[in-house]
Parts: sequence; structure tokens; C-alpha cells
Amino acid sequence: MSQSTTNYVYADGNGATATRRNVAIVGAGPVGSLAALNFARMGHEVQLYEYREDIRKAQLVQGRSINLALSQRGRKALAAVGLEQQVLATAIPMRGRMLHSVKGRTSIVLYDPCNNQCLYSVGRKRLNELLLDACDAFPNIHCHFEHKLVKANVREGRLQFRLGREKQKMKEQEQQPEQEQLISASADLIVGCDGAFSALRQQLVRQPGFNYSQEYIGTGYLELCIPAKDNEFQMPPNYLHIWPRDSFMMIALPNQDKSFTVTLSMPFEVFEQLKTQQQLLDFFRTHYADALPLIGEQQLIKDFFKSRPQHLMSVKCKPYHYMDKALILGDAAHAMVPYYGQGLNAGMEDLTLLNSILNQQLPLDVALEKFTESRWRDAHAICDLAMYNYVEMRDLTKRWSFRCRKWLDTTLFRIFPNQWVPLYNSVSFTSMPYSQCIANRQWQDQLLRKVLSGTIVLSFLVAVGAIYVRRLR
Amino acid sequence: MSQSTTNYVYADGNGATATRRNVAIVGAGPVGSLAALNFARMGHEVQLYEYREDIRKAQLVQGRSINLALSQRGRKALAAVGLEQQVLATAIPMRGRMLHSVKGRTSIVLYDPCNNQCLYSVGRKRLNELLLDACDAFPNIHCHFEHKLVKANVREGRLQFRLGREKQKMKEQEQQPEQEQLISASADLIVGCDGAFSALRQQLVRQPGFNYSQEYIGTGYLELCIPAKDNEFQMPPNYLHIWPRDSFMMIALPNQDKSFTVTLSMPFEVFEQLKTQQQLLDFFRTHYADALPLIGEQQLIKDFFKSRPQHLMSVKCKPYHYMDKALILGDAAHAMVPYYGQGLNAGMEDLTLLNSILNQQLPLDVALEKFTESRWRDAHAICDLAMYNYVEMRDLTKRWSFRCRKWLDTTLFRIFPNQWVPLYNSVSFTSMPYSQCIANRQWQDQLLRKVLSGTIVLSFLVAVGAIYVRRLR
Repeated sequence: MSQSTTNYVYADGNGATATRRNVAIVGAGPVGSLAALNFARMGHEVQLYEYREDIRKAQLVQGRSINLALSQRGRKALAAVGLEQQVLATAIPMRGRMLHSVKGRTSIVLYDPCNNQCLYSVGRKRLNELLLDACDAFPNIHCHFEHKLVKANVREGRLQFRLGREKQKMKEQEQQPEQEQLISASADLIVGCDGAFSALRQQLVRQPGFNYSQEYIGTGYLELCIPAKDNEFQMPPNYLHIWPRDSFMMIALPNQDKSFTVTLSMPFEVFEQLKTQQQLLDFFRTHYADALPLIGEQQLIKDFFKSRPQHLMSVKCKPYHYMDKALILGDAAHAMVPYYGQGLNAGMEDLTLLNSILNQQLPLDVALEKFTESRWRDAHAICDLAMYNYVEMRDLTKRWSFRCRKWLDTTLFRIFPNQWVPLYNSVSFTSMPYSQCIANRQWQDQLLRKVLSGTIVLSFLVAVGAIYVRRLR
Repeated sequence: MSQSTTNYVYADGNGATATRRNVAIVGAGPVGSLAALNFARMGHEVQLYEYREDIRKAQLVQGRSINLALSQRGRKALAAVGLEQQVLATAIPMRGRMLHSVKGRTSIVLYDPCNNQCLYSVGRKRLNELLLDACDAFPNIHCHFEHKLVKANVREGRLQFRLGREKQKMKEQEQQPEQEQLISASADLIVGCDGAFSALRQQLVRQPGFNYSQEYIGTGYLELCIPAKDNEFQMPPNYLHIWPRDSFMMIALPNQDKSFTVTLSMPFEVFEQLKTQQQLLDFFRTHYADALPLIGEQQLIKDFFKSRPQHLMSVKCKPYHYMDKALILGDAAHAMVPYYGQGLNAGMEDLTLLNSILNQQLPLDVALEKFTESRWRDAHAICDLAMYNYVEMRDLTKRWSFRCRKWLDTTLFRIFPNQWVPLYNSVSFTSMPYSQCIANRQWQDQLLRKVLSGTIVLSFLVAVGAIYVRRLR
């Protein structure tokens, strides 16, 4: 199989002419399938390659996490392809954090007490299915599942894929089995949406001038489950549940089937200390006493020892493109630790930005250069914020000073809804560039510091004044 | 061809027993061949693979730079294998920097006016030849040239090499030409000394927990030459010549054949402005007027337009090992920009440290873990220092404040030769860990700041006192 490379000119909706390109998208997850929709709507010929089988036919999703937190940036990108309402229809709104203390007491910190905006817990499978169904409606999107990218020549726009198990078997019956069967394809533009361990990025990393860093954190994570009971949620569903415990923590997000996906995040050393069933149960009885009966002791033991804790990585790149030949988006370009719930949202926002740039009808290499220049600071910023939020979630949410600041932020936000948007809200509920969210927070910190020191000085002056006046009397 | 993996026990020189391993070293440059010597001396069976042809038979060295600055750390590592004096015998000592002003005036800044220590300009080819000749003397070192590593399975200790052009041709006459002939090998330990773009590191980068960054600088470099004239050097040979010009610079190191290798470092934008021969000559007449007649106008034009400026990259990793299976050393582990002349020295120092750890007879995985832990801070530090020295060389060397500090450092060094070692001297002429060199400099900066502010306060007090006394009179 081989797609030919043909550039031809077509008339777009506004009567303008644009070059119609053969675009190969690697990865048909949420970001890849959204990218396919976007390129198809511009009139390009899209080949969408995915190394897994079609998720709509899959029983079990092999993905890292089965639910995702959707917020403003993801919603905006979905709205642009007319899918926002369909996705929200089966999503579960989360109005705030429900904090679980060691003693099992719960308290609620709303995300947005002013405008009641929420995060949405969406099933990865459901979201991906909706996007792929939408792809099927485009005659210029061609899906190729079980195609694993093994080689890419970005300069010449050539790709080679290894077929998945089933397809490989079918091929083998026709061909000689000892020769490995690779599928070749070519494209004018290759778009890598193939996740944190992107195979396309591995090619870009070899190009001179490609800056890259991957940083692992010393914390591992492991997924557990709080099942439904009598077909009901075992905890209030409309919250993101957090058990902050200083150097480690646990969170839970609600699923459509009334279960919760629970994520346990701890330093690898702590995982290693839990070797026996007894040690595990003792640990949970000490730190997560209220969650233990909900998970179930036997289920906990089974799930905990079934798999090893997974690593978490932060990826930063610059640039995201190679001439007018290749581009990486989403986790392939900026994987982050999952503690801001912005991984998917940032990936989808890449497409909002890319669209707005591509619509300016610049030469493609200039447009992709502009995309890199417009995006890298914000992508690096959200990677840093995600790292920071890990500290906040496991540690700060418990502290008095954090709650005090949260209360102050909320109060000021109520009074000045346009002038004082707290950091979390600007990240989750606006489309303010991530780097500007950080700058905004720094401005707020400075102002508060000035007001605080001003107040102290004023109090001192008033006190001195009062003593002086008293003496005069 | 396939080497079998056999661990067997042998008695070392001290009568103790140690495991004799099959060690595959990838890369037979100065660090790789030095590593081969070190492992062979410990009694291991060493396979040394190099993708280029044997440098001793090569006419032209394809390497990046034909001369290298050897200093204390490299000398120490060479001394440990008995080669220091042989290398120094054909090296050219450089006693300091000779600075060339725009007007062609020269001034000298000695590296070490106290102890007269020098850097040594050594030919890469000569150094490599001496090391390979030494390898030939060991029956347990087996060299394999024109073997390019294409695949490595570090977990299972398997390697695959593609043969060089000549060997490939010989093979093809026996085999079917359409099937690519790969050479397989196995090893207990794979050591990657294969440079900044290390193929072995590409495998390690995929391992969970492997932190990695590559950072390109916006500066490119291009090599020129000041040839010998009447079989004599055209400039004083015993200096590293520098033409500092703020945002760009040029340096020259002496060669054995009485030529100088000249390296022009400039932002890529500046390179791009020099499109025509006239533009190039005008640029040199303005900025490097004294060097132009030495290089020769026609030769400059030829060399400048022959090749594009090369990128410069800084690489940081952690860890440097994978269990007891793989290890990276030298540029593969910590490539740096070339402005401290420490790239080779740091690579060779890796082996000094590795030896001292391996001699502790720890289990190999523990020893390699200890190597990573003992080395990464210093490797990161020298990468940062090299970046800093670029600023110093192109910019600071011209400034009054820099020269003033240099004078102060030298004076204090003369008075307190053991207590006040300037940064450059501690890096180049001692074996002080690089991170400690930086800490040492920070301590000096702090002390000088305190003394300076103390002096100002004291002067003020003396002045006030003088006025007061005068009034009393």
C-alpha cells in the first residue's frame, strides 16, 4: 500500500484557493482524531493511523487512564467541530474538590463559587468514539488501525508501519511469513499525535536545532477502583475526591457506570515498602481508612499487586515542527504530569491555535514556525504548572494558609470577576494563554504582598499615633 | 559473527577473585579507546566497535575538530594508563589567552602566572592513534572498525552493527546483495562512548526513569585555517588566540604542522547575512583585520562557503547506566559546547572515577549506580560552565571589570595558592569536582562582595570621622 503525494489546488468556502495536501496523522486518540477533523474540514486529504485496534470495537481500553477531566480549552476545541454538547451529555460535572482527612472527615473547596463552572469527568473511550464517528462522516478521512509507526523520514515525507497482530496474520497467509511486512506511505505533512512516547518525535529529536527534555518525577502512580454499589455511586459523584497526605496522595474521578477511578500517587520508595498484603492493608487503614471499605480489601489487594507503579514524565520541546513537513501536537509535544487535568485540554487547544494560524493562509512552513513560536512558552508553562499542582494537591490543600489564600482569592473574584481571576480558574475556565495565567498570578501575589505590608505599616502607625495621642491627654 | 556471553571468575593481581565480563565498547575515539584500556587492565574481555575506519589508516579525519585542549583531568586519566608523557611529547603548550582587538592589538592573559600550568593543544588523530596502539598491546581487546551500531537491546545485552562500505562490499560478494547484512554481538556490559549523538543513548532514553535533555544554542561554528608560512607559525604558538567581538568571536589553536585551526562562532543570523564573497571579506576586514591576511582571502572564501555552520548542543542525562547492563561515558553522557575545552577532559575523567568505583569490588549494578550518583552533578556543572565560558570568551574578556577581577584573582592566588584558586584554574588545573569549582567561585564572589561593601562603609566612616575631628579643631 502506498499513498501518492499530490498537491493540488482547491477552492475553499470563502472562494479563496489553498493547497490541498496529503496529511498523515499518526495516532487516533482524542487529539489525533480531532486533528483529523480539523484538517479534513480545511479540505485536505487525511490518512489517520493508529497502532491500537479501533477503540469502538475494543472491549478493554489499554490507555493509561479511563477518565479525563475536560475543561474550557478542551470544550472550546470540541465546540469548533460541533461536538461539545454531545461530549458533555455523557460527562459528569465536578463542581470542586472534596477533601478527605485522615480521620475520614470531608470538606469541599468549590472550583468556581462565582460562576459555578465545573470540570467534566469524561470517559476516554466515549470521547474517542464520538470523535472517530465524526471522522467517519468525512470522505477525505481514511482510518488505518493497527498500524504502528516504525520509521519516518520527515524530510522526504515517507512513513513505514508494522501491522497489528490480526492484520499481520492475514497478510502472512498471502506472503512469506519469514519476511517482515512493512506498510509504506507518503505524505506532504506528517502530524504526530502519538502521545508521550511519540515515535514521530523520536525522528525530530535527531534534527539539528531540536531542543528536547524529558524529566521523570520520583513519584509513581497506580490505578484502583471504587465500584458502584447497588447501582449507585458510593461517594458524592460531583466532586474530584482528594486524600492529601503530604508526600503522597490519592484522587478519585467519577465514571458513567457509577464507579470511581482511583489514582494512588506515591514516591517509589513508599510503593516498595508495601510488600505484603498485611503491609498494604495497614497502610490503607492508617492513611485512607474511609476509602478502604469502598474499594474493598480483597479488590485492593488484587489491583495493587497486579501491576507495578507507573512512571510519570514531563516533556518539553522546541520547535514542534520540521519545515513544512512535520508537526507534533498534544502529549507528543508537551506531555505533563497529570495533576492539573490539563493534558488533554492543552492538546486540544493546540488545534484551536493551529487552526487560527492555518486560516491566515500563510505558506505552510511559515505557519508552522508561527505555531511553534506562539505555543512553546504556554506549553512549557502548563508543564510547570502541572508539576506545581502536584505539590498543591498532596500537600497545600491541607494547610491553613492555602485555604486562607483560596478564601481571599474567591472573595476578590466575587468582587472583581474580570480583574481578579484566581490561577486555577484562569487555567481551567478561561482560554487565557497558560504563560499569562502564571504572570497574572505573580501580579496578584505581588499586590497582596504590598497590601499586607502596607497594612502592617499602617497598623504600626495607627498604634504609635494612638499612644502619642494618649500621652498628650 | 556472534560473541558468546560468558561470565567466569578470575584471580586479579591482589589475589582476590572478580567476575570477568564480556564488555562491548561502542566508539573507539579517545574516550572509547581509553575505556577499552581500563576494562582490559581489569581483566575483562573487551570488544571495541567503531563506525569509522581505523583512524591510523585514515588520510582525513572526519571528526568535528582536529585539535583538542588537554588539561589536568585528561592528563591524569592518561597517566593512569601510562600514556601521559607520550601524549605531551607532541602536544603544544598554551600558556594563556592571546586577545586580538578589533584594531589588531594583542594582549596576553596567562592561565596560571603562579605555577605556570598550561593547556596542551593535542591533535585528535595523534591522541587516538596512541590510545589504539596501546589497545593493540592487550590480547583481550578486540577492535572492530567500520561497525556502525544500528540496534541495541540493553536488557538482553544484544547488539547489531551495520558494516562500513568496504567491508559491506566484501560481504556482498559472498551473500545476496539485496538482503542487508547485520552483524550480531552480545555482551554482559555495553559501554557507549559514541559521542554527542550516541546510538546507545537513544536506547537508554526509552527506559522509564531516564532523564534527558538536549539544548542547542543559537550559535553556529565553522572551521577555518591559518596555514604555516615558510614552515613557521604565523602567530605566537604558545597561546589560545581569541578575537572576542561581543555577540560573536573567533579562536585559534596551534597544530603540530605549524598551522592553526580557527573556529568562527557566531549567531546563525550573522552567518546568514554573509551571502557573497564581498560581504564575507568586508566582514573580516571590519572585525578580524589582523587575521584575514594570515588566513588568506581566497582560502577564507573557499573554506567559508564549502560547508554550512554546524550546530552546538549541550546534553544532560541522569542516570548514566542501566542496571548492570549498560553505561554511557564522555560526550554520549554529557556533550557540552566547546568553550571550556573540557569536553575531552571530562570524558576521560569519567574513567578515573569509574575505575576508582569499580576497584571497590561492589556488585556491578551497585557500582554503576554509584557512578551515576557521584558523577551527574559534576557533569551537569561542566555543561553549565562551558555555556558560561562562551559568554566570557566572546564578551567579558574585553571588559575592564573582567580584567580587573582576573587581576584580583591572580593576586590573591599568588598570596594564598591553596585557599584562593580561581575558577578557571580549578577547572583546568586541578581535579576538584566541577560542582565544587562552582561552589568555590560562589564563595569567592560572596567574600569579595562583603569586603567591597565593608570597604565602602569603612571609607564612609573614616570620612565622617575626619570631618568630625576637623570640626572639633
